[in-house]
Amino acid sequence: MKLFRFGEQGHEMPGVIMGDIQYDVSAFGEDYNEAFFQSNGLERLQQYIQENRSHLPEVPKDVRLGSAIGRPSKIICIGLNYADHAHETNAKIPEEPIVFFKATSALCGPNNPVIIPRGSEKLDWEVELGVVIGKKASYISEEEALGYVAGYVLHNDYSERAFQLERGGQWVKGKSNDTFAPVGPFLATPDELGDINNLRLWLMVNGESRQDGNTSNLIFKIPFLISYLSQFMTLLPGDMITTGTPAGVGLGMNPPVYLKPGDVVKLGIDGLGVSRQEVKGYAAD
Amino acid sequence: MKLFRFGEQGHEMPGVIMGDIQYDVSAFGEDYNEAFFQSNGLERLQQYIQENRSHLPEVPKDVRLGSAIGRPSKIICIGLNYADHAHETNAKIPEEPIVFFKATSALCGPNNPVIIPRGSEKLDWEVELGVVIGKKASYISEEEALGYVAGYVLHNDYSERAFQLERGGQWVKGKSNDTFAPVGPFLATPDELGDINNLRLWLMVNGESRQDGNTSNLIFKIPFLISYLSQFMTLLPGDMITTGTPAGVGLGMNPPVYLKPGDVVKLGIDGLGVSRQEVKGYAAD
Repeated sequence: MKLFRFGEQGHEMPGVIMGDIQYDVSAFGEDYNEAFFQSNGLERLQQYIQENRSHLPEVPKDVRLGSAIGRPSKIICIGLNYADHAHETNAKIPEEPIVFFKATSALCGPNNPVIIPRGSEKLDWEVELGVVIGKKASYISEEEALGYVAGYVLHNDYSERAFQLERGGQWVKGKSNDTFAPVGPFLATPDELGDINNLRLWLMVNGESRQDGNTSNLIFKIPFLISYLSQFMTLLPGDMITTGTPAGVGLGMNPPVYLKPGDVVKLGIDGLGVSRQEVKGYAAD
Repeated sequence: MKLFRFGEQGHEMPGVIMGDIQYDVSAFGEDYNEAFFQSNGLERLQQYIQENRSHLPEVPKDVRLGSAIGRPSKIICIGLNYADHAHETNAKIPEEPIVFFKATSALCGPNNPVIIPRGSEKLDWEVELGVVIGKKASYISEEEALGYVAGYVLHNDYSERAFQLERGGQWVKGKSNDTFAPVGPFLATPDELGDINNLRLWLMVNGESRQDGNTSNLIFKIPFLISYLSQFMTLLPGDMITTGTPAGVGLGMNPPVYLKPGDVVKLGIDGLGVSRQEVKGYAAD
């Protein structure tokens, strides 16, 4: 299945994509959130679709998309998980996964504008494969890890490099502003994807290629990451693990290049669609 | 007002404390969570109590207490915010607040046992003053910051020092295991407390004093912290900021001392009550 959410920000409704057509399943009465995944929602939704397929309303192509998942309990990010990206930022290849959190208040639709925070001069991009957890996971083995996955999403882990690296302490400061987590256009369940260890992921700024990598180069693979994280915290249904970015970020360019108002960022992953964010300056409400 | 939550874990009910008596306000029909604080819940609850005071059911003294707040969108921790604690851990006094997150799945009742994670040998304690946010806050000034506070809580920011400091990368890894965030016994609204810059906070292990500090020694004060954080992320109603710990943690002892099964940790803050956690080894379900 491919799940998406559509409608006004903060009031998104659930949909599914079949073939090329987006269908409205708001009559199913649930959002794609912790409660949904926890209660076997994917299976129940599949059943609902089978029973109601002939009269599901279509959703227009040009509808606003929300984040493909409702707000999770956590967004867990893996740092420096592609060797080429570690190299370009002058960082060592990590011996164990580097883990940090992104505020869930940063979550937004895949095509929302990204807002440059007040005082920011170093807004950077990071195309990433996001893994959405389907079942509560604590101390699970690598072998059983994929059984805990609800699906996969495209994510742009926007990062303010000065906030992240020059303001003291931990990275979360540069990862958490509003609009720093566009997720989607849709969540694909594992059966919709081919080999998750061979997905191309790419990102362009104003039409120029900046990132072009492949999940085959992940240092720590997805089953290992899920098992590893589950030793340090309980993963809840709906939580997102975002698995790191390949080379080609603005920080890695010589000299570094950061986003400015009017820039357009476009990104995609094989089988997970494309998202597009226009860069906007901060303006008070 | 003093708010508390009681009953079975995961199914807690709301209560209020007046004088020495705990009252059940579950008939009010809301939990102390984001939706409650966002919708002016404190004021509505006060009104409800005034109208129903004569027939509120009492709650027995020995009831199980839950976390004083429902699960928030984020638990934001400030590191090294007391000079004596920075010194004992051989860290420099930070020039700006050090910020990290704790997984909200770590939240638990104030008197729940704390569980030593699998493979853990360095479980440590940290008595802290927690600030609970009452209104959505983005880019707010230091002057207006206290207007965004719903209340204050006692928190023990349990930390696994090897996970935090010896496993690569960011601190979140040592802060997020289940039971690492006992909160309560109750939330006190600001009017219930004296000067928040002059609260004694203390912690004992097996009856021996380990920490004995005062919020007068906070390097970064609460209004500054709220304003500062609101530049990097949107604070949501119900979010908790935990403001750092004074000297006296196990890591700072010579040689370091960590918790072991059977130890009893007791802590308190002026006006915010006392909590108590017995240390247990990890046991599979």
